[in-house]
Amino acid sequence: MSSSVSFLGTGAMGSALAGASATGGRTVTVWNRDRTKADDLAGVTVADSPADAIRASDVVVVCLLDHASVHAVLDPVAHAIRGRHVVNVTTTTPAEARALADWTRNLGADYLDGGVMAVPELIGTPAGEVLYSGSAEVFDAHRGLLESWCRAEYLGFDAGAAALYDLALLAGMYSMFAGFFHGAAMVGTAGVSATEFAGRATPWLQAMADSLTDFAAVVDAGDYGAAGQQSLYFSDPRYIVTASRDAGVRTDLIDAVRALVLRQIDAGHGADGFARVIESFRGAA
Amino acid sequence: MSSSVSFLGTGAMGSALAGASATGGRTVTVWNRDRTKADDLAGVTVADSPADAIRASDVVVVCLLDHASVHAVLDPVAHAIRGRHVVNVTTTTPAEARALADWTRNLGADYLDGGVMAVPELIGTPAGEVLYSGSAEVFDAHRGLLESWCRAEYLGFDAGAAALYDLALLAGMYSMFAGFFHGAAMVGTAGVSATEFAGRATPWLQAMADSLTDFAAVVDAGDYGAAGQQSLYFSDPRYIVTASRDAGVRTDLIDAVRALVLRQIDAGHGADGFARVIESFRGAA
Repeated sequence: MSSSVSFLGTGAMGSALAGASATGGRTVTVWNRDRTKADDLAGVTVADSPADAIRASDVVVVCLLDHASVHAVLDPVAHAIRGRHVVNVTTTTPAEARALADWTRNLGADYLDGGVMAVPELIGTPAGEVLYSGSAEVFDAHRGLLESWCRAEYLGFDAGAAALYDLALLAGMYSMFAGFFHGAAMVGTAGVSATEFAGRATPWLQAMADSLTDFAAVVDAGDYGAAGQQSLYFSDPRYIVTASRDAGVRTDLIDAVRALVLRQIDAGHGADGFARVIESFRGAA
Repeated sequence: MSSSVSFLGTGAMGSALAGASATGGRTVTVWNRDRTKADDLAGVTVADSPADAIRASDVVVVCLLDHASVHAVLDPVAHAIRGRHVVNVTTTTPAEARALADWTRNLGADYLDGGVMAVPELIGTPAGEVLYSGSAEVFDAHRGLLESWCRAEYLGFDAGAAALYDLALLAGMYSMFAGFFHGAAMVGTAGVSATEFAGRATPWLQAMADSLTDFAAVVDAGDYGAAGQQSLYFSDPRYIVTASRDAGVRTDLIDAVRALVLRQIDAGHGADGFARVIESFRGAA
């Protein structure tokens, strides 16, 4: 709807989003605590204060360090956001996103939360995706802007939904990355370079990721005993623990993975399929 | 070289390998402790004893439960393996593979160890791969047989190399799988099915696996401070911990991943790139 947009925060991600917005033909105003970082951006107007930036556009994109930074910047200028559309892509927890949505609504503004599933280099390309939740009105009104950044998907009214989904995908990513480094450390003890290992590990992990759909089907069907699955007994990564210890590689990560498997075996489910591991995550205090 | 091959062990993997060997036109003899499992296989001869199976072919493929099972089967018939080519694809640690290689050589036989990077369903297709190490003579003599199973790669004379590489790749896989289940448990608390989550997590993890090459380049260059990397400070998965706890999802796995990051930050390296996490695996007692 609006052809102008303001940004609070021009770190790596904020700069990428502001740049893509300007490239898309929008009038872009930015503010950053350290103004020198904003001055480097091409095709944008640098505001002297958060209030000036907020006044410049109907839609205000917030891309700061964390939840506390959002309040540090917005609290002093809370009066200025009345009637604005606030799109917050700062990384927060779902509970923090919901609290920001409530706080914003109480000030007479509309709130959309975004979880950016992309590194800054992917902004402006269709390879990245941002998940949104909160105000459908804000999402619909600025869909063109959001899609000038990368793919955009709306997950629902719960302002915390995008952050929950974002962090769930990141849990998978960081666990995969950590497992890769564990493996690289193991073969490194035999003189294999990390680059050579990555050349094999990348297609291997990409092929194995295709198994996730089958695991998910078992989880959703709730039948961990269904035929054709690799059993938990067979999935016990005890060899990895022993081989790592033998090679002088720390086992903290694989110990944690193994504990998830053993928790199900110890509960008498060793003959069930590996997908039952999800039960080891459920029902914590 | 030889057109006949014997198998000790016809579990899911042994059966798949024996079946692919028979399909490839070889004379196949199998033995299994529970003979009924072997009797179901088409196009193979079932031997009455391990000794009979070993006598039937110059090359003997061992595919049993673990290192102890290999000794339980071979020790009583050790005299029979003199002059044979032994290909052991039983999952073992590198140290166990080296010990089996020594034991086999002392009996006058040649030993090749194999790490199967495939589920049984992929045997007989080029999608699977087996990594080998140990006797180059055995690998060269039976390359046609090995390639009738799936892709075959020889890693070197150290009989433990294939097992080390195998377990290193499995460390990545199990960590990725565990991280997926963590994420699925998180979004599951908001009513998202595991199947819907897998539909997004699979392409996400496959795209993120492309980052491993960049991480590896940083590791091999040894310059964790090189420009253009996501810092360890920024990679601290504290939001995932908090969001999981808020949602009632157990945090043991992400706690372990986070500890790898914090170990480097606590050592004063927070501004370095994420690839430094490999140092958290190195140098354990």
